[in-house]
Amino acid sequence: METVDLDLGEHTYAIHIGAGLLNNAQLLRSTIKGEKVFVVSNETVAALYLETLLASLEGLNVTSLLLADGEQYKTLETLNLIYTGLLENKHNRSTTIVALGGGVVGDTAGFAAATYQRGVEFIQIPTTLLAQVDSSVGGKTAVNHPMGKNMIGAFHQPQAVYIDTDTLKSLPPRELAAGFAEVIKHGALADANYFAWLEENVEALLALDDELIGYAVKRSCEIKAAIVSRDEKELGIRAHLNFGHTFGHAIENHQGYGKWLHGEAVATGMVMAADLSMRLGLITQDIASRIRQLISDFNLPVCPPADLSAAQMIELMRVDKKANDQGIRFVLLESLGCAQVVDGVELSLLHDTLERRDGLCEL
Amino acid sequence: METVDLDLGEHTYAIHIGAGLLNNAQLLRSTIKGEKVFVVSNETVAALYLETLLASLEGLNVTSLLLADGEQYKTLETLNLIYTGLLENKHNRSTTIVALGGGVVGDTAGFAAATYQRGVEFIQIPTTLLAQVDSSVGGKTAVNHPMGKNMIGAFHQPQAVYIDTDTLKSLPPRELAAGFAEVIKHGALADANYFAWLEENVEALLALDDELIGYAVKRSCEIKAAIVSRDEKELGIRAHLNFGHTFGHAIENHQGYGKWLHGEAVATGMVMAADLSMRLGLITQDIASRIRQLISDFNLPVCPPADLSAAQMIELMRVDKKANDQGIRFVLLESLGCAQVVDGVELSLLHDTLERRDGLCEL
Repeated sequence: METVDLDLGEHTYAIHIGAGLLNNAQLLRSTIKGEKVFVVSNETVAALYLETLLASLEGLNVTSLLLADGEQYKTLETLNLIYTGLLENKHNRSTTIVALGGGVVGDTAGFAAATYQRGVEFIQIPTTLLAQVDSSVGGKTAVNHPMGKNMIGAFHQPQAVYIDTDTLKSLPPRELAAGFAEVIKHGALADANYFAWLEENVEALLALDDELIGYAVKRSCEIKAAIVSRDEKELGIRAHLNFGHTFGHAIENHQGYGKWLHGEAVATGMVMAADLSMRLGLITQDIASRIRQLISDFNLPVCPPADLSAAQMIELMRVDKKANDQGIRFVLLESLGCAQVVDGVELSLLHDTLERRDGLCEL
Repeated sequence: METVDLDLGEHTYAIHIGAGLLNNAQLLRSTIKGEKVFVVSNETVAALYLETLLASLEGLNVTSLLLADGEQYKTLETLNLIYTGLLENKHNRSTTIVALGGGVVGDTAGFAAATYQRGVEFIQIPTTLLAQVDSSVGGKTAVNHPMGKNMIGAFHQPQAVYIDTDTLKSLPPRELAAGFAEVIKHGALADANYFAWLEENVEALLALDDELIGYAVKRSCEIKAAIVSRDEKELGIRAHLNFGHTFGHAIENHQGYGKWLHGEAVATGMVMAADLSMRLGLITQDIASRIRQLISDFNLPVCPPADLSAAQMIELMRVDKKANDQGIRFVLLESLGCAQVVDGVELSLLHDTLERRDGLCEL
């Protein structure tokens, strides 16, 4: 087992990574303080892993609630189901909420934990690659609003994150690929050597080689933890983790949640952000091409939906959380492994990227 | 103008108290950092004070949203109206939300500020006595769930609180009286001299004598600020501010929100908590009687609804936020001006209070 610490002063916690962690009752119980536990999962994940988890929690007073599976259920209505379940079972401030599932379960259960009785403790057990390397780490919780993704949320750090890499073996190939979008992102924005290592190991990673996937999850968690520990509330450098997300969120909003997976939208968003970085003279054509190629190698889309016009995309990006009074804010690359926040991008260059000029979508 | 500082380290802010503050544009604008402001009020309050506030905010980019008036609208649905209004008008993380109204407006708008895009800045302009001396100060925000009051919420401190005591002149007598319940609470739990001063000035306070009401608002804010600054997240002494609330919340839940005003339920709750304190031998019959008398003098109810049985009340108190794994938790008086948290109250004594034995409701 590997452990990555997320250093946040009094909110410091450990991210445990290993195969078979779900069976480690002693470890799982070590961060639960009260007698009552409320497990939130979804129908798909629960069928595979809930029994194992409940066995590890035996002796505690556990209630489970299963959500429907899908990004379209990451809503205020689902949140209300969680509140009702907590109240019906008389959960109080000493309760620990456990999220067993992917990003939707973790973000929704986490926001419920942040707001139930003004905050209860919370444990993340992410079962998708995307949740393991990204959404379960760092305390961002949220639900979607029909007008925008993650618009309603809170920062609420978990007591611990338990990553059982065995759970990736049950993940559909499309969801596995979507998780690698965030892995690629970590290399692109923070570590050129890691990016090169990913280029060399695409096939083995997609085949879930135990050692290689364990390293990728750990290295991605390290990169994310290092950034979050410097800027928990995203007042500065944490924004770098949004590389690809300004374009990506616009794509998700346009398609309606659930048609493109989040990782797929971020993948295309990174291709577009790299393209814009190149047009601004920040990175070379060669770096932009390597990013596009690696994304494609992981079976991820490199081109936005054909029916999404430049004007629509700009309109959608204006309501993004990263927008401010000065306009749309982008995270761009200065070099491979080095990101920066850029305001006031020249509109003609942005239009070139949005209109896919000069072969953005070709490989 | 008087100013009370709420000392919370980096979250320290000022509570400004005075007649006519709503016209003080310079003061009101001094804590707004961005260009965009989102004012939340209700139909009743807006008809009286929105124009004055908007005049003071002239030059800023202001959107207003008016909620329906009443505790029954303090819900997730109303919260969603606020999120939608914010998104439709493209408010981003630099927006300041301003709550103009009573406790419902302040709690709901405050929770929206805590959670819109994971948190935006927030200003309280309370216009009811209850909001001025209690709910606007201290950063507690929440909405109700059908199964429990304030069950969904967050701690989110405002940038400032502006209390214009002139607004009390438009308050219906019943709401004014309900506000005095929290004023009486501050005397009972923290300052016996203040309690005695209230006993001497009932008529002048109910007549809103400028000087006396100004003093009462200031003294109550001082007491609340001193407690909150020692325990922002209610891990200890802040619970003392819940004196009367365990019984009070049960009454509100039983009646359905909006039939009894919050202050009325707390008033009766304090009579019951004082009665229980006496039965436990903590305070004398004389102190319990003075509390009941003062509550009655302010035209507040001293007796719970006749159709609320002891068994129902206990069931309702079990899901209160103040309940824990050990059972129902009460805030009781050790003497006038000194409260304490009490667990494990003997059930027979609690039943005596709940069944109104020995003349609890008589004066």
